[in-house]
Amino acid sequence: MDFSYSEKVVTLQKKLTRFMEEHIYPNEQLYEEQLSQQESRWSQVPPMMESWKKKAKEQGLWNLFLPDSEYGAGLTNTEYAPLCEIMGRSLIAPEVFNCNAPDTGNMEVLVRYGTPEQKKQWLTPLLNGEIRSCFSMTEPQVASSDATNIEADIVLDGDEYVINGHKWWTSGAGDPRCRFAIVMGKSNRNARKHEQQSMIIVPLDTQGVTIKRMLPVFGYDHAPHGHAEITYTNVRVPKENIIWGEGKGFAIAQGRLGPGRIHHCMRLIGAAEYALEILCKRVQERSAFGKSLANQGVIKEWIADSRIEIEQARLLTLKAAYKMDKYGNKEAKPEIAMIKVVAPSMALRVLDRAIQGLGAAGVSDDFPLAAQWANARTLRLADGPDEVHRAQLAKLELQKHLVQTEVETV
Amino acid sequence: MDFSYSEKVVTLQKKLTRFMEEHIYPNEQLYEEQLSQQESRWSQVPPMMESWKKKAKEQGLWNLFLPDSEYGAGLTNTEYAPLCEIMGRSLIAPEVFNCNAPDTGNMEVLVRYGTPEQKKQWLTPLLNGEIRSCFSMTEPQVASSDATNIEADIVLDGDEYVINGHKWWTSGAGDPRCRFAIVMGKSNRNARKHEQQSMIIVPLDTQGVTIKRMLPVFGYDHAPHGHAEITYTNVRVPKENIIWGEGKGFAIAQGRLGPGRIHHCMRLIGAAEYALEILCKRVQERSAFGKSLANQGVIKEWIADSRIEIEQARLLTLKAAYKMDKYGNKEAKPEIAMIKVVAPSMALRVLDRAIQGLGAAGVSDDFPLAAQWANARTLRLADGPDEVHRAQLAKLELQKHLVQTEVETV
Amino acid sequence: MDFSYSEKVVTLQKKLTRFMEEHIYPNEQLYEEQLSQQESRWSQVPPMMESWKKKAKEQGLWNLFLPDSEYGAGLTNTEYAPLCEIMGRSLIAPEVFNCNAPDTGNMEVLVRYGTPEQKKQWLTPLLNGEIRSCFSMTEPQVASSDATNIEADIVLDGDEYVINGHKWWTSGAGDPRCRFAIVMGKSNRNARKHEQQSMIIVPLDTQGVTIKRMLPVFGYDHAPHGHAEITYTNVRVPKENIIWGEGKGFAIAQGRLGPGRIHHCMRLIGAAEYALEILCKRVQERSAFGKSLANQGVIKEWIADSRIEIEQARLLTLKAAYKMDKYGNKEAKPEIAMIKVVAPSMALRVLDRAIQGLGAAGVSDDFPLAAQWANARTLRLADGPDEVHRAQLAKLELQKHLVQTEVETV
Amino acid sequence: MDFSYSEKVVTLQKKLTRFMEEHIYPNEQLYEEQLSQQESRWSQVPPMMESWKKKAKEQGLWNLFLPDSEYGAGLTNTEYAPLCEIMGRSLIAPEVFNCNAPDTGNMEVLVRYGTPEQKKQWLTPLLNGEIRSCFSMTEPQVASSDATNIEADIVLDGDEYVINGHKWWTSGAGDPRCRFAIVMGKSNRNARKHEQQSMIIVPLDTQGVTIKRMLPVFGYDHAPHGHAEITYTNVRVPKENIIWGEGKGFAIAQGRLGPGRIHHCMRLIGAAEYALEILCKRVQERSAFGKSLANQGVIKEWIADSRIEIEQARLLTLKAAYKMDKYGNKEAKPEIAMIKVVAPSMALRVLDRAIQGLGAAGVSDDFPLAAQWANARTLRLADGPDEVHRAQLAKLELQKHLVQTEVETV
Repeated sequence: MDFSYSEKVVTLQKKLTRFMEEHIYPNEQLYEEQLSQQESRWSQVPPMMESWKKKAKEQGLWNLFLPDSEYGAGLTNTEYAPLCEIMGRSLIAPEVFNCNAPDTGNMEVLVRYGTPEQKKQWLTPLLNGEIRSCFSMTEPQVASSDATNIEADIVLDGDEYVINGHKWWTSGAGDPRCRFAIVMGKSNRNARKHEQQSMIIVPLDTQGVTIKRMLPVFGYDHAPHGHAEITYTNVRVPKENIIWGEGKGFAIAQGRLGPGRIHHCMRLIGAAEYALEILCKRVQERSAFGKSLANQGVIKEWIADSRIEIEQARLLTLKAAYKMDKYGNKEAKPEIAMIKVVAPSMALRVLDRAIQGLGAAGVSDDFPLAAQWANARTLRLADGPDEVHRAQLAKLELQKHLVQTEVETV
Repeated sequence: MDFSYSEKVVTLQKKLTRFMEEHIYPNEQLYEEQLSQQESRWSQVPPMMESWKKKAKEQGLWNLFLPDSEYGAGLTNTEYAPLCEIMGRSLIAPEVFNCNAPDTGNMEVLVRYGTPEQKKQWLTPLLNGEIRSCFSMTEPQVASSDATNIEADIVLDGDEYVINGHKWWTSGAGDPRCRFAIVMGKSNRNARKHEQQSMIIVPLDTQGVTIKRMLPVFGYDHAPHGHAEITYTNVRVPKENIIWGEGKGFAIAQGRLGPGRIHHCMRLIGAAEYALEILCKRVQERSAFGKSLANQGVIKEWIADSRIEIEQARLLTLKAAYKMDKYGNKEAKPEIAMIKVVAPSMALRVLDRAIQGLGAAGVSDDFPLAAQWANARTLRLADGPDEVHRAQLAKLELQKHLVQTEVETV
Repeated sequence: MDFSYSEKVVTLQKKLTRFMEEHIYPNEQLYEEQLSQQESRWSQVPPMMESWKKKAKEQGLWNLFLPDSEYGAGLTNTEYAPLCEIMGRSLIAPEVFNCNAPDTGNMEVLVRYGTPEQKKQWLTPLLNGEIRSCFSMTEPQVASSDATNIEADIVLDGDEYVINGHKWWTSGAGDPRCRFAIVMGKSNRNARKHEQQSMIIVPLDTQGVTIKRMLPVFGYDHAPHGHAEITYTNVRVPKENIIWGEGKGFAIAQGRLGPGRIHHCMRLIGAAEYALEILCKRVQERSAFGKSLANQGVIKEWIADSRIEIEQARLLTLKAAYKMDKYGNKEAKPEIAMIKVVAPSMALRVLDRAIQGLGAAGVSDDFPLAAQWANARTLRLADGPDEVHRAQLAKLELQKHLVQTEVETV
Repeated sequence: MDFSYSEKVVTLQKKLTRFMEEHIYPNEQLYEEQLSQQESRWSQVPPMMESWKKKAKEQGLWNLFLPDSEYGAGLTNTEYAPLCEIMGRSLIAPEVFNCNAPDTGNMEVLVRYGTPEQKKQWLTPLLNGEIRSCFSMTEPQVASSDATNIEADIVLDGDEYVINGHKWWTSGAGDPRCRFAIVMGKSNRNARKHEQQSMIIVPLDTQGVTIKRMLPVFGYDHAPHGHAEITYTNVRVPKENIIWGEGKGFAIAQGRLGPGRIHHCMRLIGAAEYALEILCKRVQERSAFGKSLANQGVIKEWIADSRIEIEQARLLTLKAAYKMDKYGNKEAKPEIAMIKVVAPSMALRVLDRAIQGLGAAGVSDDFPLAAQWANARTLRLADGPDEVHRAQLAKLELQKHLVQTEVETV
């Protein structure tokens, strides 16, 4: 049992922190302003982003998420966790280090399951940060928390697959640099329940791909990436675009979501840490009813509880990462499910306390609290709602103590 | 003890409900779209609003909030509660019936404390829905939860008051029809703590009044009304614009906030009811893991708890309204404080459950849940944060059982 | 809408309060000591109890629970609520006024469904407080939260019913004055699901009735009444002892539990009020870290939240009572279910805060907090666990918004 | 970062688990019965206890708590944590392995601060399990959460110290084998605030030591050890009985409480684990409303949340233990405070869910849930109430972000 970070990690933490302090924090509002001053918030990414990416690459702060050392930085998940946390302190930071969702998930899929040709065409530019990508899974017509509900079709016709489907919450599709989507759909409705699905690469400029609208999240548009509602109407792509093979969609999703989920959790911990810092500073600057807000008992309780909850979430995240490193993503499934339930709710509580402590400033955009809150709120739904993860955890727990009856499958 | 609504109330409930179903619900999204299609979301109010107002006035659904029968509908607070609740189901509805904050509060101030001349110039057009107004109290530089912290100056100079101050969260100031602000500031820093403040009417087109920016709430701009940051620099208004008299600002605030607070709570109950309806419908339409969402035990628990919490909040609101009617706003202070703590948190929980039950649709603008959530969240801060109300309640409770020591004043 | 208590109620409140202050509060610990000084805590009831009962009867504070004016005080449920609340402030008080469970429930059953002979033999002495009774429903072998699970047999054999069954949590059976049980069991396993059950009167001295042991509740034995595990082995009683008729057990249970449930809630509100009083007094008497506990922000928040939660629970209880009075117990089912969920949890929270505020004294028997807590805890289980009530509420709520699918029956 | 247990630990876990399964679990109820069958529950310890202790000593399962290898097993805190957890599954188990409070704390005090003579006379028999001891600190007249409130006197008079004081919650004093108390009191009221206190060894058979009564905890007497109210009236002991020296009481208390606190937390984790096991088994054995309790969504949520909360509490406990081992008890103060807040509340929630899932059986003594709950409840108060730990944590957190004002000392 050893709870210390290695020297390598501590060095990277320092570098990242310095980068954030020098470049990101002082320019977050400027980034947002530049975005708003454009004709459309979707037409262009403020140029400081590419400049930051160049700097990050030079400093070796690039693709840290990828344990695979051929393509990425070769850090373990346990090593990456405290670094990803730092990136999570700003909503615009992860992209700077090429560590942002959903591209990281897509890169992992291509590293693991992509053909050499797919890697060359799609993975390499993603790894270089030259293009962006999106992931098209959720559908408006069904409860997508149950992935077997998905209705889109991926049907082979000659040398091409034909895709028909209606998707939404395809995050990142609004980005002007976004080149392709990985689409999940059904290739064989007669196969076994978890072998009906396939994933396929669809270039966004293919005929029949239509972005209907960008969906807001609590009033935020999340430009320039955003969340798209997309229809795929008789979209034809070469059959070589299938990933891994027909019927592998569900298996890929399972593999893809593990790392993706824990990355979200790491970032949420950073967001919560930052919120706690903001709160601690602000309550020492302001007074009401004759004493510093920092001396109000209730606020002290918020601070203590926030510290306690952050610590616990961080430890659970690290344990999950450790199990992924040591035993593989599949073995770490219970821990990933746990942290996926814990981290968003923890972050929401910490952020909400900070908002309350700041008063009206907290709900505005003068501080990152409200925007981080809205983001964290989506993560109680994205990649599986809390309830699905809890049901899976209960199932696993009950199986340890099997008595007489079969437990329903989740 | 009689828990039934009078026939008068039941009739008005039906009329209001029909109005909402015929006019408001089907057009909420259109209203929002028209707003966005304008050059600026602040330049104009979609014309359907004035048309609705005309209809509402014709149907006697106008100024229902005002117990004073000379100026308003003459309903008691207890009678108004279940009607205001219905209006609260849509964020754009209260204005339709001339029952929207902060105008209602301003009208009450003018009815109670305004001179005949003030009434003629400012109250009458407000009562007619011809103009809008705003209320300028909160300041960015101090913890405004303690109203004695307020720093703006209102200083007599000859026949004029000169106002200097920096305000924000002046809600409604963005509305193109907004004509004046009621500004709170200090007229005498040497007076007793709660007699230093005055309120004064400031026409928004007076020289020295500058709207610096409109503040967002969780990404929402709340156009066309919005929340303004305003500077008042050597703003001069006739001394007749003072309300009630110098040093009366705190007393007016206390009187103003009672009804304002309970109206917010009434509307929140309506918002929660509507959210529960949306949830109940949606979970019967969707299935996951082989059964209707409506049959998932966890969701059933959300529904039951929501019903329970709404009922309790409604009863407490009605009790507070009853005490206001029977014993006056001052006597009802504890109940108003209680419901001001209860209603926003209750609504946030119910809305949050509905969001979770709807999945990603819940955080978007396809349903009113996220927007209502953001609005409810501000109400844990506006008109006094929860913590201040709780501290006052504790003080009152402790005084019932005085033992040996003095309790600190809140 | 009228939230005032009638003069009749206010007068009775005063009388009851004076009785409690004169007789009960000063002697609660003495009562407990006398009980412990006996050879067995089950052999005798401290004589002060009969003396109190005599006084209560003389003052007209007797059988207040019974709306039926032929047998009881003829108060409505709404009138009884604030009185029952006062009794709930002491765990030994309800018996003083002949208003204690499970006798009240049994008296109501006999008033409604008893034959003249049953009334003469069992109801009259109960109404006079001469004997006590118990109610035998819950069984150790099945989840009794689902009453259809009950396994005991009530089989007609000639002129007698033969009862075989294993029951526990038969409260009151330990009392030396306890004369009979109302036993629930199955008389016809082929009848429709809710017509298989019957209820029958079984004198406790009948052959085959064996009290196996008295069950503790969080270490409390609740002597002299207690909770018994009882076996009924070939117990024969005259067929006239059946109540209402064969197959009516479930219907009686439904009728019996409504008033019983709401009485529990009324008492819990009194227990919570008393706890809040104790807390408010104590925190003004003690200091830590240089200031009165009453000035610690966290404790002030406990006090405020307790007041808020008590008020809401009381209003919901009164509304439920009102609906029972005006529309009947069946119509009031949703409100009864709501308050049955709300009141125990509310009381547990308030009691727990008081315990925490008192420190170690709070968990001891120097204050009634721990004992009241343990009692309240059982009421999240007794008369239906929270989860069953919530499931019923959800079902009712979903039915208001029926969309396409059938909702599972609870 | 390494989350694995060492081989040494895994081996000891297995041995301990086997010991618990062979000896403790099957005899817990028998132990309780034997205690009750005695004339007094305080007169004697059931003989199986000494027999178990002998076996445990033979198997090397003895004094595992003591990191000091001269006197104890020499395990680090991190190694001891998962072992102590296993002992915590039964309320009577810790004594079997000589690892029970308050003896462990007293042994640590004597190891660290005792003179050779004190060690010989009091430490050696404690280490051998031949005698028991108690710790006399809390007083009924003051809020003992603030240790500076303590009023007892320890005054030098010639060669003796004279002790006068009124203590309660002196745990373990009821045990027939209890030989001495460590008493905390004031030796110099003119010294600096945290140097007024001393600790002294008082043999329980000294004249002037009177056990007034044993205090119950939620109805449990916790015999044969119990919690005593004790008066010390002109109690004279040799001056050599002072520990470390006059004025060192507060420093010793700080040192004593660190390990004591974390041991409580370790045991609570074990209690929660056991409760979760009981719940998982029971809900698979019972059905209601047509399906296994294990398939009710709400119960599945309880199970998942329990697993999640246990995991997080365990990790935080291990981290605290790790910091104690690596940097010392003082450096680990924040983590100890955190886990002291987290573990009791976590255990209370898990135990409460298990109770609810078991129905009435849960509140009885047929399962260890209610007794463990009552024990855990005291641990939100003992060794510092939650609020004091939270206030300290907030202070530490605020100091990291010092802005302008001084933060009040806790």
